[in-house]
Amino acid sequence: MTTPASITMRGRYRARAMEQLLLPRHGAQPDGPDRGPGRGYGQDAPITLNEELAGEIAQLIEAGVLRPGEKIPSVRAMCGQRKISQATVLLAYHRLEDRGLIQTRPRSGYYVSGHWKDLPREPEISHPALGTTEIDISDLVFEVLGAVKSRQVVPLGSAFPSPLLFPLTKLSKLLGSAARKLDPWATVRDLSPGSWELRRQIAKRYLTTGVHVPLDEIVVTAGAMEALNLCLQAVTQRGDIVAVESPAFYAGLQAIERLGLRAIEIPTHPREGVDLAALEQALAKNDIKACWFMPSFQNPLGSLMPDAKRKALVELLEPHGVPLIEDDVYAELHFGAQPATPAKAFDRAGLVLHCGSFSKCLAPGYRIGWAAPGRFMRQVSRLKLMTSVATNIPAQEALAQYLKQGGYEHHLRQLRHTLQAQQNDLLLALGEQFPPGTRITRPQGGYFLWVELPEHVDTLNLHRQAASLGISISPGPMFSATRGYKNCMRLNYGHPWSPQIADAVATLGQLIKQAG
Amino acid sequence: MTTPASITMRGRYRARAMEQLLLPRHGAQPDGPDRGPGRGYGQDAPITLNEELAGEIAQLIEAGVLRPGEKIPSVRAMCGQRKISQATVLLAYHRLEDRGLIQTRPRSGYYVSGHWKDLPREPEISHPALGTTEIDISDLVFEVLGAVKSRQVVPLGSAFPSPLLFPLTKLSKLLGSAARKLDPWATVRDLSPGSWELRRQIAKRYLTTGVHVPLDEIVVTAGAMEALNLCLQAVTQRGDIVAVESPAFYAGLQAIERLGLRAIEIPTHPREGVDLAALEQALAKNDIKACWFMPSFQNPLGSLMPDAKRKALVELLEPHGVPLIEDDVYAELHFGAQPATPAKAFDRAGLVLHCGSFSKCLAPGYRIGWAAPGRFMRQVSRLKLMTSVATNIPAQEALAQYLKQGGYEHHLRQLRHTLQAQQNDLLLALGEQFPPGTRITRPQGGYFLWVELPEHVDTLNLHRQAASLGISISPGPMFSATRGYKNCMRLNYGHPWSPQIADAVATLGQLIKQAG
Repeated sequence: MTTPASITMRGRYRARAMEQLLLPRHGAQPDGPDRGPGRGYGQDAPITLNEELAGEIAQLIEAGVLRPGEKIPSVRAMCGQRKISQATVLLAYHRLEDRGLIQTRPRSGYYVSGHWKDLPREPEISHPALGTTEIDISDLVFEVLGAVKSRQVVPLGSAFPSPLLFPLTKLSKLLGSAARKLDPWATVRDLSPGSWELRRQIAKRYLTTGVHVPLDEIVVTAGAMEALNLCLQAVTQRGDIVAVESPAFYAGLQAIERLGLRAIEIPTHPREGVDLAALEQALAKNDIKACWFMPSFQNPLGSLMPDAKRKALVELLEPHGVPLIEDDVYAELHFGAQPATPAKAFDRAGLVLHCGSFSKCLAPGYRIGWAAPGRFMRQVSRLKLMTSVATNIPAQEALAQYLKQGGYEHHLRQLRHTLQAQQNDLLLALGEQFPPGTRITRPQGGYFLWVELPEHVDTLNLHRQAASLGISISPGPMFSATRGYKNCMRLNYGHPWSPQIADAVATLGQLIKQAG
Repeated sequence: MTTPASITMRGRYRARAMEQLLLPRHGAQPDGPDRGPGRGYGQDAPITLNEELAGEIAQLIEAGVLRPGEKIPSVRAMCGQRKISQATVLLAYHRLEDRGLIQTRPRSGYYVSGHWKDLPREPEISHPALGTTEIDISDLVFEVLGAVKSRQVVPLGSAFPSPLLFPLTKLSKLLGSAARKLDPWATVRDLSPGSWELRRQIAKRYLTTGVHVPLDEIVVTAGAMEALNLCLQAVTQRGDIVAVESPAFYAGLQAIERLGLRAIEIPTHPREGVDLAALEQALAKNDIKACWFMPSFQNPLGSLMPDAKRKALVELLEPHGVPLIEDDVYAELHFGAQPATPAKAFDRAGLVLHCGSFSKCLAPGYRIGWAAPGRFMRQVSRLKLMTSVATNIPAQEALAQYLKQGGYEHHLRQLRHTLQAQQNDLLLALGEQFPPGTRITRPQGGYFLWVELPEHVDTLNLHRQAASLGISISPGPMFSATRGYKNCMRLNYGHPWSPQIADAVATLGQLIKQAG
């Protein structure tokens, strides 16, 4: 039996969940073309009823509440109970079929897809080594990132989703037009903190997730990477200790290394993110000066911290006066109907430095990100001016126009749907091809998942073997200050499923079975 | 008598110079539309004979070889001796008239303009305090830079030339078209070190100034500021000593401050740049780990280091193994016919990290610069990847296309001519309005000049008084780790001469006369 532990724990909620599924809902929009503001979204793209219903059922399936082989409520029952049209329910069920989550049995109805029972379990919470660490992972990181530049390499180790998933044509038109209409004086005026209109659009988007950020507390940066680096610089001095997740995003570890800081790795749950009890202990024992966490779709785990836990995190840090760098670059890639609430929404002390980006969700290669650094605004804005003066000004205007015109929500819905379908494909293939004992996270967003292989498998070896066969992976030690996670790897499902990727997964499975 | 000391020194060369002026020349192109490759330039824009002649005469006037009121050779004499057409000579003389350097006297001929005799002297070489310094100039710098953002303020203190001097319309068309044609995979492929085509174009341009830089030794950056910061980071460790000019570019001082380094200020000649004897002494006495110098049109002095001195500089540093960060962002803005040879051309040991930019000469707001970091290529390229991943990719392609299509030389010629005319206007106004005892540099390029006021004048006070009247200046202490240069300031002549600027210069003159 390979049902995840966390799924078994949730068994007792099953009956109640099934009942709730049939309750009438209010708030979402009728189906059809976009008709006006939705719940917490921009003007152009409300959540439709069918999307909401599909999302709810998908969550129940993925959480193991609805089990493989189990019948889901009939279209007629769903219509009657929830007071919604048959078309809406059918659309929702088709969405779920598209994603491989349910299947029809002729003259019988819809059932949770049997594939799901073959999926590997999720990993347990991490147990990083205690103590703080000086870091040296750069050679490995550059080796892996360098390999993925070639189109010939199967990009399971890539840090980026496929560039074909983005509205590059529309953006290019806006870029040309923004550049033509640009007030030449903008090139002098829009230095750090950046374009007024783009900051206004970012501030508006914050409002939809329940965060009030005035536009004069936003600094536009050359992608989130610059924002994160500037924020870390603004809140630390050489020798300071910075808490990171475990496993952690390698660029965070590199920034810590470069600034002469020390990292302390905090145990992190593959579903719910950093462990607050462990963080509390670490705060008591160490003079932690900052945290760099990714509450939404953490890289590499894909974990999503629940809103209540985000609130608790902010409340834990506040009395210590410890700034939280909230790396939120995957926030828009949520598969659930609603985005999570940024930790910044719970921040009363100005200690949360929220960093976002358009690189992963809208405009790769445009290098537009931002920081909302709270009480550290002045420092971050000055650091930006000192290190790169300004962010590309035509690109700032083009993105501002894109956000203003609408169409972003529509694009995001497609993107999320595509990524979710690609995750399903990869999960099913991994379940089929990888040996028993493999554990895999099931992220509720983003485009990375984390694979824990049997203990004897060394993913640095696997990486080298795979690279020689034209397959990239991101081996676990990239994500650890202590070179841990030797039997783990991060895989990217940001690229359309293809025979090449299917073959690569089979090859990886073979290599793993041969290992040791 | 206010003739500069350096001009008097050159008196003995006058007779020979006048003879040489009349010698026939070979190499420059006939006048008229561009006809083919010129001397050391891109394919689109040879130096024409009339430009060459005007440039030669201008240099002789500005260096004091031809003195105010002196007759220059007649058109007929010049034609006959140099074997060039009357039209060419007339064009050259009209250029010089445009710039206010010569004037006609009816039925007599052309004379060096009388205005020149009223120009203040040039300052002497600087004498910075000995020893190394920890720096804290940022508040002042941000105050001054912040004030210039408003269009209402007279931008004598600005760091930028007028954005109206650049081909923004042509660039915007190329940007739209580059973005439309962009291979989506470029967004993944063209991470650090950047676009292949742009690096190829930069490498080609290096060749025209006598430097061979392979394109895989070029990193494209978000403007030169990022390039300079990455280079400094690549060659230093916390606590290291870095040699800078005196006065020095404030952003260099800020970078040194931010990285926990110490600055040592080297005496710098207002015409020829950093003093090599003083540098040699400093190298002997201090464990200098890097130099950050601007051989071309140093900010703020405007000094231009002669080629032979650049060679000597490289040869001085090489046995010490000390890297030279060559900040060359104003290189293209030379008023002389030929560009200077970058110090990098003399570098055999890979110790020169040459940094350039398109922000000052072509595309403000596009934030495209580069580093050619020699033996430090790997470190700089990795630092770029770690701190901002990539540079805006459509903008890289647009500039590559611009450079490929031609037209750059034509634009640069116009720009240089405009800046030189604006410098003349400012110099003449300063000579008229500022009190005796004022000294002013006469840069041979760029858009800054340096003013040394009588010793009792405090330019921090002047800055505050002027700011309250809507006039910006850059007070001297911005340019010193030791807050020296209290009676100096940097003025910007990058903006078209206007009644507002003329009034501002008169107002500054009044304030200065009232001071003390």
